[in-house]
Amino acid sequence: MRILHHLPLSPQSRFVRLMLAEKKLPFELVVEKTWEQNERFYDLNPAGEVPVLVEDNGIIVPGGRVIAEYLEDAYPEISLMGRSLTDRVEVRRLMDWFERLFQQEVMVNLLGEKVEKRLFGQGHPDGKVLQAGYKNLRFHLDYIGYLAETRTWLGGSVLTAADFIAAAHISALDFLGDIDWRRAPCVRDWYARIKSRPCFRDLLSDRVSGVKPPAHYADLDF
Amino acid sequence: MRILHHLPLSPQSRFVRLMLAEKKLPFELVVEKTWEQNERFYDLNPAGEVPVLVEDNGIIVPGGRVIAEYLEDAYPEISLMGRSLTDRVEVRRLMDWFERLFQQEVMVNLLGEKVEKRLFGQGHPDGKVLQAGYKNLRFHLDYIGYLAETRTWLGGSVLTAADFIAAAHISALDFLGDIDWRRAPCVRDWYARIKSRPCFRDLLSDRVSGVKPPAHYADLDF
Repeated sequence: MRILHHLPLSPQSRFVRLMLAEKKLPFELVVEKTWEQNERFYDLNPAGEVPVLVEDNGIIVPGGRVIAEYLEDAYPEISLMGRSLTDRVEVRRLMDWFERLFQQEVMVNLLGEKVEKRLFGQGHPDGKVLQAGYKNLRFHLDYIGYLAETRTWLGGSVLTAADFIAAAHISALDFLGDIDWRRAPCVRDWYARIKSRPCFRDLLSDRVSGVKPPAHYADLDF
Repeated sequence: MRILHHLPLSPQSRFVRLMLAEKKLPFELVVEKTWEQNERFYDLNPAGEVPVLVEDNGIIVPGGRVIAEYLEDAYPEISLMGRSLTDRVEVRRLMDWFERLFQQEVMVNLLGEKVEKRLFGQGHPDGKVLQAGYKNLRFHLDYIGYLAETRTWLGGSVLTAADFIAAAHISALDFLGDIDWRRAPCVRDWYARIKSRPCFRDLLSDRVSGVKPPAHYADLDF
């Protein structure tokens, strides 16, 4: 069986779980405690990060965007990267946006301080860093809201990897109770649509030791 | 004429210049002073970063990896992303390695402190940050050396985008005089081979106000 090495709150891992499920590719999850720096895991990915996909035929694919491109190459039947040249540019621009900018400006400050610091034994969250994260999050929610308001899906007229990478990040923050949905009605409408898809079910039943998600996290009618 | 908005020392811009030249696609360079936050440039790329490629037909492509994927989609004749599924995974893994890990662990600490801080009016380089950058660089040079020693090219048996993204980063550091070539003989052999390709010529004649490259920078027999 195809295996995905992951961590429940890693947005890149969530992104790949959504892509696999939407493409109807069965897989088993294996939790990889990256902070334990397991040598065997470095053989799979010298970067020491999740997600890593291991195929039945032995192909090893590390990293969210690398896996997304691989899945499109290997299983093109259900395409999630856009069909035309310009659609593909837009989907990849948004994958880049979330994996670099959103990750650095929001996730490192919020998920990093609240969860990763504890796991890596690096102490308590720093209030100033959290504050910077929330400020950046407001800007990013405005931008996602603008995309959601002016397009059917974030990358254009059809559902693509751009929606899944955005939803992966948003779902991890929502698990932490960090999204003020009243401030972001357009994002909320888009997220309610993607959250109700069958591919999302597995994410909504995630439980993480030491973190209790808010009551609305798994609610499709939040 | 195809236009590439760039900065001379931006490794992502250098990566795209090498890819365009290797694919024999003519282009004109336009310097974009991103620290001036020109509104017209944000219309091309909401992230406000170089590189941005603007095609004759109006297609706008922002970001190093997004442009690399676009060039492979639009101009597949000279392929630089690997042919087999596993080759493509390895090329993309290394693009990811350089654009995220090398960028964050080395470039932000060295190029960021020495050049970008000055351009953005953020003061002088911090010695501790530089020291961390040099320490990380030694680890990364060992890893690139290991790849260069065990393979014909960094991504495998043929020249690919993995070589160009690595060479783009190394060339920017070499411009700053930050590579101790005596410590990295395998990297040096690989870099000498790629540096002598015609696509590299344009990079070696770059001049940047306020930074003088070392004498060996443009020397093919360094």
